[in-house]
Amino acid sequence: MMKKKEHKECMSALLPIRDTLDVIGGKWKILILISIWEGNKHFREIERSIPKLSTKVLSKELKDMEENKLITRTVLNGFPVRTEYAPTEYSKTLKKVILELYNWGVNHRKKIFA
Amino acid sequence: MMKKKEHKECMSALLPIRDTLDVIGGKWKILILISIWEGNKHFREIERSIPKLSTKVLSKELKDMEENKLITRTVLNGFPVRTEYAPTEYSKTLKKVILELYNWGVNHRKKIFA
Repeated sequence: MMKKKEHKECMSALLPIRDTLDVIGGKWKILILISIWEGNKHFREIERSIPKLSTKVLSKELKDMEENKLITRTVLNGFPVRTEYAPTEYSKTLKKVILELYNWGVNHRKKIFA
Repeated sequence: MMKKKEHKECMSALLPIRDTLDVIGGKWKILILISIWEGNKHFREIERSIPKLSTKVLSKELKDMEENKLITRTVLNGFPVRTEYAPTEYSKTLKKVILELYNWGVNHRKKIFA
């Protein structure tokens, strides 16, 4: 059995993993990020690019992503006022993580269906 | 906006990412895997090593992990009959993925709290 101290260390080592999963986990986050990376800028564009994604959920996820510095939200003057979303340079640091998830998943399908 | 075909390709490219997140996502899976990697073999040991983990959830997660070939479950003859869980060699392929999640999370804390 893990000893108390080791266990506590172990738990604190897990926090960053939890953080990352909070940022990219769930059903929509990676989809939305990819949609924005692909060049979709406006709320309705992003919404239309992802089937079954509700307005309410997209709105919440975009706020989270802005807080996590993955996207910027710019309100453009004009009539009508338009809001644009753009990926940050920082968001690109997730590409390596997503690639690892992708590669493992591809291999896992082979393993499970072998 | 993404075109239909691109979009379909995009969605199918996302399946392996979803698979990986299904295998390691959620509140308990990585904790349980690490507990078993650390040498905990018996159900009660694993259960005790993770605060707030319920018997029912652990039981379900262990079954999932066995199906995903991350652990083996061996029933040992004797009295009382004992069941041992052990990590597979294959489970170690997740270490790189978990390390990426960890590294990104460490950096993200710095970024967010900077």
